Amino acid sequence: MLIYGDTQSGNCYKIQLLLSHLQTQSKPLKVEWVAMDIVNGDTKNAEFLQRTPIGKIPLLELDDGRCLSESNAILNYLAAGSALIPQDNWLKAKVLQWQFFEQYSHEPYIAVARFINLYLGLPDDKKEEYESKQAGGHKALKVMEEQLKQSDFLVSNQLSVADISLYAYTHVAHEGGFDISQYPFIQQWLKRVSALPQHLPMQTN
Amino acid sequence: MLIYGDTQSGNCYKIQLLLSHLQTQSKPLKVEWVAMDIVNGDTKNAEFLQRTPIGKIPLLELDDGRCLSESNAILNYLAAGSALIPQDNWLKAKVLQWQFFEQYSHEPYIAVARFINLYLGLPDDKKEEYESKQAGGHKALKVMEEQLKQSDFLVSNQLSVADISLYAYTHVAHEGGFDISQYPFIQQWLKRVSALPQHLPMQTN
Repeated sequence: MLIYGDTQSGNCYKIQLLLSHLQTQSKPLKVEWVAMDIVNGDTKNAEFLQRTPIGKIPLLELDDGRCLSESNAILNYLAAGSALIPQDNWLKAKVLQWQFFEQYSHEPYIAVARFINLYLGLPDDKKEEYESKQAGGHKALKVMEEQLKQSDFLVSNQLSVADISLYAYTHVAHEGGFDISQYPFIQQWLKRVSALPQHLPMQTN
Repeated sequence: MLIYGDTQSGNCYKIQLLLSHLQTQSKPLKVEWVAMDIVNGDTKNAEFLQRTPIGKIPLLELDDGRCLSESNAILNYLAAGSALIPQDNWLKAKVLQWQFFEQYSHEPYIAVARFINLYLGLPDDKKEEYESKQAGGHKALKVMEEQLKQSDFLVSNQLSVADISLYAYTHVAHEGGFDISQYPFIQQWLKRVSALPQHLPMQTN
């Protein structure tokens, strides 16, 4: 299997973090990383667009050439059968709830604010957009805080792919201007996730 | 089971359309609909926020009080074990791929443009936002068109919850200013989905 990705992208980091955890599971996976440079246009060239018309990373390519996009779909596929996806139907649905929440209500605020601040250097013409992301990001963090008051991980008291999905951009939310010290239960959860034996830090330049 | 929803919301319509299809499946579900008026603040009152801190509909409530949010998570939970979710792991992952695509790359453009046009009446101070949604919406439609050139439904040649997720706002995309006649394969797919015996049209005022 191949993963096309950029190690600095939170969506790609999710996959790396999952693969690290799967090393302790019954089915460690053989995955080769294909480094992509978005700024250089790697995701927009014709060869890549043939694999995935949406032109986004991460992208999983099986040995037979079939491709899967969307970070959270890739997580669920790779983690199938492992302890990182609950067997119970209700808990499985709660995992998906958190992953859809991540893509609709968390990533578009926290990851985008971080991108504007960290990668673009918060230029004047992006300040309004950056500011407009703050309220939505805090709303998402409040929703997580409410859950983490009740359970050690987002779904029950055990790590699942939901935690991996939300850890990716939450642990770097301060780079988007979000003060996590307002959220003690998120802080404890971040420490809990990062203290797990197979944890892998995000690679940064 | 209860569903808190608004029949005019595409995200809520997904659930109604699924329930209609499940009537032909082995496990028809007994679900009661609780009408919510977003404009009237029904989703922001304290009682509803106790059920779901994010304050969004649709929301599924089981008889024992447990709640599940996120339309696509609800679809997957209710459809579990039916023919609307493929058994094969790869196809299951492709269903999720399309549902995450719907929430990140389709709904925020097409549903939001439709909301500004249809519900707000395209006021002057929203025209810039409305225009800014057009390119992203067409990008999403092009990605769907590419897939529908290759298969009758989004995942293989059989209806799945992925089609239900994407039908909801695609079949009313013209109300957001998107000319679907540019996409002949999407047009055929819309007809194919709406011609199925258990199809249920969206309720509009």
